[in-house]
Amino acid sequence: MEFTIKQIAGMLGGVVKGDDSQKITMLAKIQDAKNGQIAFLSNPKYEHFIYETKASAVIVKKDFVPKKEIKSSLILVDDPYSSFTVLLEEYHKLISFQKVGVEEPSYLGQNCSIGVANYRGAFSYIGNNVSIGDNVKIYPHTFIGDNTVIGSNTILHPNVKLYAGTRVGDNCVIHSGAVLGSDGFGFAPQDDGSYKSIPQLGNVIVEDNVTIGANTVIDCATLAGDSTVLHKGVKLDNLIQIAHNVEIGKNTVIAAQTGISGSTRVGENCVLAGQVGIAGHLVIANKTSVGAQAGISKSVKEEGQRLLGYPVLDVKEYFRSYAVFKQLPDISTRLKQLEEKLASVNSVPK
Amino acid sequence: MEFTIKQIAGMLGGVVKGDDSQKITMLAKIQDAKNGQIAFLSNPKYEHFIYETKASAVIVKKDFVPKKEIKSSLILVDDPYSSFTVLLEEYHKLISFQKVGVEEPSYLGQNCSIGVANYRGAFSYIGNNVSIGDNVKIYPHTFIGDNTVIGSNTILHPNVKLYAGTRVGDNCVIHSGAVLGSDGFGFAPQDDGSYKSIPQLGNVIVEDNVTIGANTVIDCATLAGDSTVLHKGVKLDNLIQIAHNVEIGKNTVIAAQTGISGSTRVGENCVLAGQVGIAGHLVIANKTSVGAQAGISKSVKEEGQRLLGYPVLDVKEYFRSYAVFKQLPDISTRLKQLEEKLASVNSVPK
Amino acid sequence: MEFTIKQIAGMLGGVVKGDDSQKITMLAKIQDAKNGQIAFLSNPKYEHFIYETKASAVIVKKDFVPKKEIKSSLILVDDPYSSFTVLLEEYHKLISFQKVGVEEPSYLGQNCSIGVANYRGAFSYIGNNVSIGDNVKIYPHTFIGDNTVIGSNTILHPNVKLYAGTRVGDNCVIHSGAVLGSDGFGFAPQDDGSYKSIPQLGNVIVEDNVTIGANTVIDCATLAGDSTVLHKGVKLDNLIQIAHNVEIGKNTVIAAQTGISGSTRVGENCVLAGQVGIAGHLVIANKTSVGAQAGISKSVKEEGQRLLGYPVLDVKEYFRSYAVFKQLPDISTRLKQLEEKLASVNSVPK
Repeated sequence: MEFTIKQIAGMLGGVVKGDDSQKITMLAKIQDAKNGQIAFLSNPKYEHFIYETKASAVIVKKDFVPKKEIKSSLILVDDPYSSFTVLLEEYHKLISFQKVGVEEPSYLGQNCSIGVANYRGAFSYIGNNVSIGDNVKIYPHTFIGDNTVIGSNTILHPNVKLYAGTRVGDNCVIHSGAVLGSDGFGFAPQDDGSYKSIPQLGNVIVEDNVTIGANTVIDCATLAGDSTVLHKGVKLDNLIQIAHNVEIGKNTVIAAQTGISGSTRVGENCVLAGQVGIAGHLVIANKTSVGAQAGISKSVKEEGQRLLGYPVLDVKEYFRSYAVFKQLPDISTRLKQLEEKLASVNSVPK
Repeated sequence: MEFTIKQIAGMLGGVVKGDDSQKITMLAKIQDAKNGQIAFLSNPKYEHFIYETKASAVIVKKDFVPKKEIKSSLILVDDPYSSFTVLLEEYHKLISFQKVGVEEPSYLGQNCSIGVANYRGAFSYIGNNVSIGDNVKIYPHTFIGDNTVIGSNTILHPNVKLYAGTRVGDNCVIHSGAVLGSDGFGFAPQDDGSYKSIPQLGNVIVEDNVTIGANTVIDCATLAGDSTVLHKGVKLDNLIQIAHNVEIGKNTVIAAQTGISGSTRVGENCVLAGQVGIAGHLVIANKTSVGAQAGISKSVKEEGQRLLGYPVLDVKEYFRSYAVFKQLPDISTRLKQLEEKLASVNSVPK
Repeated sequence: MEFTIKQIAGMLGGVVKGDDSQKITMLAKIQDAKNGQIAFLSNPKYEHFIYETKASAVIVKKDFVPKKEIKSSLILVDDPYSSFTVLLEEYHKLISFQKVGVEEPSYLGQNCSIGVANYRGAFSYIGNNVSIGDNVKIYPHTFIGDNTVIGSNTILHPNVKLYAGTRVGDNCVIHSGAVLGSDGFGFAPQDDGSYKSIPQLGNVIVEDNVTIGANTVIDCATLAGDSTVLHKGVKLDNLIQIAHNVEIGKNTVIAAQTGISGSTRVGENCVLAGQVGIAGHLVIANKTSVGAQAGISKSVKEEGQRLLGYPVLDVKEYFRSYAVFKQLPDISTRLKQLEEKLASVNSVPK
């Protein structure tokens, strides 16, 4: 990143007070900022920093009146915090999408269609009949199997693995070590106690705007023509297990180390915390919220529930029961005392 | 895959009714099948599809009598469902094992013995003194350390990592990101509160017909000459942790995200569900079945138990206790009421 | 490894009895040792093995008096067990650090500073502006992003991934598939139910003497200038999730499949067992010990506690409550009986 203060003010629709020709290379907090960096002041509690900061520029509210001399140039805007957020995003995009071109050695199969402004890192592997959109960043050691389709503006971090036939949409981010399309866990028991693999012939479909965390695994569907599907806007954290034929609804967010068993359909706008487990062949209603380490063994039919425990209860009920769980030794003792007392009451001659 | 209908009928020991010269390239469900594909009809409920399907061929029972005109060729067999399953498996093998040859660049160390009909993908790495059987498929980015031995007909998907000295049998499938032979987690506490690594010198042995899921980790044994062992027919799902010196008995099946601590011996024909945890140095009897998220802290001596909870109970006992757990707030209230009532009974003058 | 018995005696400050010119290539247990190997005898219970062993040399206590003829050479030392441990460590270091040089193809970016005695395996990737110390072992398929700093004597096993800007200290070991610096899981909810990514601009800092297990993931901090930090001597097992901005104190040990949520600070010398979950923004006191599968939802303020359950209780309390949990069906029945009895007592005419 390298912009003049004038250019940045232009992006933000702000007005510069001071020298607008200096170059900015980085964003920083006002208390940490150095020469060549830009910061912002939103909360009046932090005003004192603006008189000491080494930032080359500070974004401030347009009605801000300094009480002392300020060395930094100022950019006057309506809302300094949102302006800074805009810059932050632009900066992040710039960094994320800055790589362009092909590093060698890399491997490219036959009959591939590849868009423009792409990056293909060294040791990346692209199989046959692969279609890739524009502005896609394929980092080193990434594997893209035969017949895979990838949309535009998608980032595959180092060492992502897409088995043959996987489809990934636009604006997706997939982190290192994620595996898409590995075989579903299907085995037919044989008479001699051994198991025979059930061929897994389906694929994985990831719609637009999906994020997938590091070392997360998504198995392919069992039958040819069927898919394990992550719908638009799904956000998966790290080390998650998504089994074969699972479907995750739009804008559902799942935290690290959660596992979802085969053929379960999770609704839209659900929030699953970390280390949750969901059994197979269930349907989870929209807007379900599941607490950490909970286990779901039955379908959740009513929307908007908050659940906890194994098997899950309503979160408040769980905590009410757990409060008593802590007192169980005391309850056991009191119950025994009651039994003894009652025995003595009974034995009182009437 | 490309066979004529005649060739497929030959494989299945069936008889063709209709044109047997058409080429089949894919299997499909009867309701989805297109020209060039083969489907089957087993359940009479689906019979109506056979009069509309675009499949080039349909496998039917040999006594099937059509009620209307059928455009597809028919293959008459004893049991259409098992015939289709046979085709499915053949098709899957064909796909899985179709790659042959060496893609460049790839790395091959010294003194290696490598069989025939193998595939070595681009960026695959084979160290020194490695022995590999026939018809082994080594996908891109796979790492095979020094002194490793791999049997025949085994598939290593992209980016499998076998540390030096690992041994893998015949007919195994190891999925992307799986790590075999990483150091066991052994540290000796020092007087200053720090820990010193205990050298991990053993290896991992995987017997024949074992499947290992994506991103699963299997640590090596601690002592030279010792091994962490997966016996014949073991099936491991994704993201599983198998610690140093663990031994998993024949035909045991373990679902995703389960973890087994050091030196534990799991018996044969066990079934462990997802996210189960087993402590170290235990022995788990044959045919033990453990429910999801359960935690085992003591050896299981009796065969064939079904367990749940933390620490585990018999599954039925767990559910009986959990049913009361849900009522604990009510139980607590009732106990208090009893105490009050009994106090008043006691205070009644007799 | 190849040393003469004389050389080994020299390392251990011991005296040889017998031929000191034979070459030793391996360490072994006395009952398993073969020609060319060295073993030790410490426990008198195993003395009988020394008269049968095929070991070329055996390390014994300096006052050991054989009762029969021994074929092996003897090395006389003060403490055979610690001498053997010393050898074991030397042997392990030798093996771990034996690789030197650069295998091709490998990728090296611009402006890198790289020390001496390093190993860079085939298909390893080093970005721009990377600084690497001496005696660092970078195995095949490892990815080292731009602006990364790595100390001396550190081992990166095959396929470690360090995102841009990661810092790793001296004497660290990072196992296969570990990911350092992936994006923190931060998303801002939008009015339409979708989520917008919050840019993740910080990094990961790993201090000296840290071990990180296979397929473990450590996310970067959110803000530029901030870091997710593993302090000196931290030991992480496999498949662990460390979220953005987490800080792990000195010499804390964490077992496999545990997950720590964003911004939590774990103290020094803590021990977390496997599959533990810790919520975000908490502070965990020094010397806290957490049992397997436990879940922590509040800060732990008092040092040295032992915790279990979800949410965690003191481990003894948990087990006392759990003991009653098992009896809940019985307790429920007894409570009902009491209620009935008391009802009949009450109805007795007084």
